[in-house]
Amino acid sequence: MTGHTAHPRVPAGAERALAHCHELARISSLEGGIERVHFTPEHKVANALAAAWMQEVGLETWQDEAGNQCGRMEGREPGLPALVLGSHLDTVTDAGEYDGMLGVMLAIEVADRLRARASELPFALELVAFSDEEGTRFGNALTGSRAFAGSWDDAWLDIEDRKGVTLRQAARTFGIDPDEIGSAARSPEDLVGYLEVHIEQGPYLLDAGRALGVVSAIAGARRFALTVTGRAGHAGGTPYARRRDALVGASEIIVEIERIAKRTGTVATVGRVRAFPGGVNVVPGVARFSLDLRAESDADRDAAFDEIEEFARSVVAERGLQWAVDEFYRADAVTCDPVLRAAVEQGVRSTGDDDPMVLWSRAGHDGMAVEAVTGVAMLFLRCGNDGISHHPDEIVEQGDVALALEALEGAVLALAEQHRNR
Amino acid sequence: MTGHTAHPRVPAGAERALAHCHELARISSLEGGIERVHFTPEHKVANALAAAWMQEVGLETWQDEAGNQCGRMEGREPGLPALVLGSHLDTVTDAGEYDGMLGVMLAIEVADRLRARASELPFALELVAFSDEEGTRFGNALTGSRAFAGSWDDAWLDIEDRKGVTLRQAARTFGIDPDEIGSAARSPEDLVGYLEVHIEQGPYLLDAGRALGVVSAIAGARRFALTVTGRAGHAGGTPYARRRDALVGASEIIVEIERIAKRTGTVATVGRVRAFPGGVNVVPGVARFSLDLRAESDADRDAAFDEIEEFARSVVAERGLQWAVDEFYRADAVTCDPVLRAAVEQGVRSTGDDDPMVLWSRAGHDGMAVEAVTGVAMLFLRCGNDGISHHPDEIVEQGDVALALEALEGAVLALAEQHRNR
Repeated sequence: MTGHTAHPRVPAGAERALAHCHELARISSLEGGIERVHFTPEHKVANALAAAWMQEVGLETWQDEAGNQCGRMEGREPGLPALVLGSHLDTVTDAGEYDGMLGVMLAIEVADRLRARASELPFALELVAFSDEEGTRFGNALTGSRAFAGSWDDAWLDIEDRKGVTLRQAARTFGIDPDEIGSAARSPEDLVGYLEVHIEQGPYLLDAGRALGVVSAIAGARRFALTVTGRAGHAGGTPYARRRDALVGASEIIVEIERIAKRTGTVATVGRVRAFPGGVNVVPGVARFSLDLRAESDADRDAAFDEIEEFARSVVAERGLQWAVDEFYRADAVTCDPVLRAAVEQGVRSTGDDDPMVLWSRAGHDGMAVEAVTGVAMLFLRCGNDGISHHPDEIVEQGDVALALEALEGAVLALAEQHRNR
Repeated sequence: MTGHTAHPRVPAGAERALAHCHELARISSLEGGIERVHFTPEHKVANALAAAWMQEVGLETWQDEAGNQCGRMEGREPGLPALVLGSHLDTVTDAGEYDGMLGVMLAIEVADRLRARASELPFALELVAFSDEEGTRFGNALTGSRAFAGSWDDAWLDIEDRKGVTLRQAARTFGIDPDEIGSAARSPEDLVGYLEVHIEQGPYLLDAGRALGVVSAIAGARRFALTVTGRAGHAGGTPYARRRDALVGASEIIVEIERIAKRTGTVATVGRVRAFPGGVNVVPGVARFSLDLRAESDADRDAAFDEIEEFARSVVAERGLQWAVDEFYRADAVTCDPVLRAAVEQGVRSTGDDDPMVLWSRAGHDGMAVEAVTGVAMLFLRCGNDGISHHPDEIVEQGDVALALEALEGAVLALAEQHRNR
C-alpha cells in the first residue's frame, strides 16, 4: 500500500482494487477492448497477477485443478473451515473492467485489512478467482465454480470452441490435466460459506440512489427455443380465411409475453426471431423465437411460463397453428443463505446505511454453482451509466467501491462474531 | 389438330394447349423441376417451340427486340390495329406448368379457331409470349412487357444476376442487341387492346365453385422495409421501465397490420422479420420487418398503409422507439379496360355462365406493364390444390381449360362485333 495517495474519504484499498481492475483490463485478447476467456494465455497471466496480489497481502496461493486461482490465510488455528470470498477473472467479449474482477480485488483488500487480526478469526479466509464464469469460449458458463462445487462433468471436455478446439485440448495447452478438473471439488465440511461482491449489472441501485444492495436470491432462469408452425402461402393468392400465418401468431405471443412478465414481476425477453421461408411476398409458414425467462424464485418463473404457454396454446388453436417448445437451458434460482445474508446486511449497516436495500440478481453468478457445496450470499455495488454491463461503458464510482470494501469487511467480521458465539 | 382424340366434352384445342404446357415443362434449367428464366438457352428453346406452334396455326411469327415471341394473323385487310392475346413463357424457380404458359397456349388455340374467319375480323390478331414476367433472373419483373409497352429503361442493362452476369451480357449471349431492346415498343395506334388468360393463383374461384372469373383490376402493390429502433440491453439487468424493446413494438405492429388489412379488404403480409443484435439474453435494440401490401385500388392500398403508419407511430411514441420506412417497390393498380372487360364477360357468358364472377388479381401480371400502351383485360381460370401456384403442385382441370378456351374465343368475337358496329 505504499505509494498510493488516497482521497481523504477513499481508503487506499479501494483505490488499489480499482487500479488492479485497470491493470487486468490490459490482459486482453481483443485489440482495443477487453476479452479474457477460459484456458488462454490471458487467463494464465490474469491468474499470475492475482496470485501475486494475494501473496502481497500475505496469502498462501495455488491454482486449483480447474484453473481457479486460490489463496488462503489461516485463522486462529491452522486447518479451520474456510470462509470463501471471491468472484471471477474471465470476461465476455468487449467487456467492462469490473464485472467479476472487482469482486476478486475487493476480496484481496479485505484479506489485507484482516491480516493483522487473522489470529482472532474463528475460520480460515480463502479467496477464489473463478476461471470461467461467463462461458464465453465454450458456451458453458460457471465451469470453474462448478468444478469447485463438485458438479463438474467430464462430458464437457468434448465441447469445442468456435475454432474447433475442445475444452480438453485447451486445458492441456493451458497446463491443466483435463482428467483432474473434477478433483478441484471442495468438501462442504471444509467451508463456512461463500461471499461475493459484484457490480449490480442493472440500474435498480442507481434508480434508488443506493450505493450497495443485499442480494436475496440469484435469478432462476429458463431459456427456450419456441416454434410456431402454420402453412406458407403466396402473399397475393392466400385469402385471410386460408392463411395459417405463423408470424402473426408468434407476434401475438411476443406481445403477451411482455404483459405476463410485467404482471407477474418476472423478466422475459425475446431476443431472437425469424420467419420462414422469409420471402417478402410469402406468408410465413414457420416462426421461431427465443425466450429468456428470469424470476426471483423458480415458482414465480415456472408460473410465468405456464401462463405464457397457456396463452400461446389459445393463440395457435384459434389460428390453426402448432406450437413447439424446446427448453435448452435451465438454472434454478438460488436463495441466499440466511446467516450469510444477515452478515452482508450487517456489513452494509456498518457503512452507515441503516436500512439496506434488498434486491434479487437478474443475472447469473458463480454463487449459483457454489451453492451446491456451501451457502452463498452476495453484496451488490451500484453501476453507473444506466446500469450498463457486458460493455466497455461499465462504470463504478470510487466512493461506492470504498463502501463495498467496508461492507465486505464488516460482513466477514459479523460472521466471525457469530461463529465465536456458537 | 390431326391426331388428337378429344374427350367428348373437351375440345381438341384444350387438350393440345395442355399437352404444349407439358412439353414446355421439359424445357428447364432445374433438374427434376421447372425453371426457365430470361435470356437463357431455355428461353430460346421455349420461344422456338412457341413460334413453331404459332406457325402451325397460320401465324406469321417473329421474336421482338426484347426477346418476346410474337405472331400475327391479319384481319379483314392487312395492317389493321391488332388485338393482342398473350401471357408469358418464363417461370419462377421450381414452378408449376401453367402460370403464364397456359395463357400463351390458349391464345394459340383461339388463333387456330379463328383462322378460317380471320378475313371477317375488324382487327388483326396478334399473339405475344412475354419473355420475362417473373423477373426470376434479374429481380426486375415485367421487363418483356415493359419493353413492349415502351417503358423499357436502359439503366436495367446493368442489373446483375446471382452469378454477376449483367442483363446486357445476357442479352448479347442470347443474340439480342441490348441497345435495341427499347425498340420493341409498340405504338398505341397499332393496338386494339390486350387480353390475357391466366390461372388465378389463389382459391377464390375454387371456393366459389366457379371455373372462370372476370378480372376487375390487377392489384396495386407496395413493398416496404420497416425498421423499429429502440435500445439494446441486458435481458437480466434492464427493468421494464428502462426497456426500449424494438421487437415487442414491432410485434404489436405486425399483429395490427393483419387487423387493418382484414378490416379494409386489403392484403398485407409480413414475410420477414429479424431482431438485432439477436442474442438470446439481449433486449432487441432494432427490429426489421417487411410489408407487402396489395389492394384492388391504389386508394385502398394507400389508405391501409396510412392506417398502419398511424398505428405504428402511436406504438413507437408510447414505447420510446423510432420508426423508419423504406419503400422499395411500388406498382400502381391497373383497372381493366371497361370495353375489353365487357368482352371478357360476354365470353364467359358464352360458356353458359349467366352471372360471371368478378374478382381482382392479387398477383401481378404483364397487363400491368401493357396498360401503358393499350387497354388490358384478363380472364382467370380456376386453380386446384387450394389455389397453389409458383409450385410444382399447381394444377388445372381439363374441363376448365376447355371453358377458358371457349370464353377467350367468345371475348374476341364479342370485341369484333363491337368494332364492326363502331
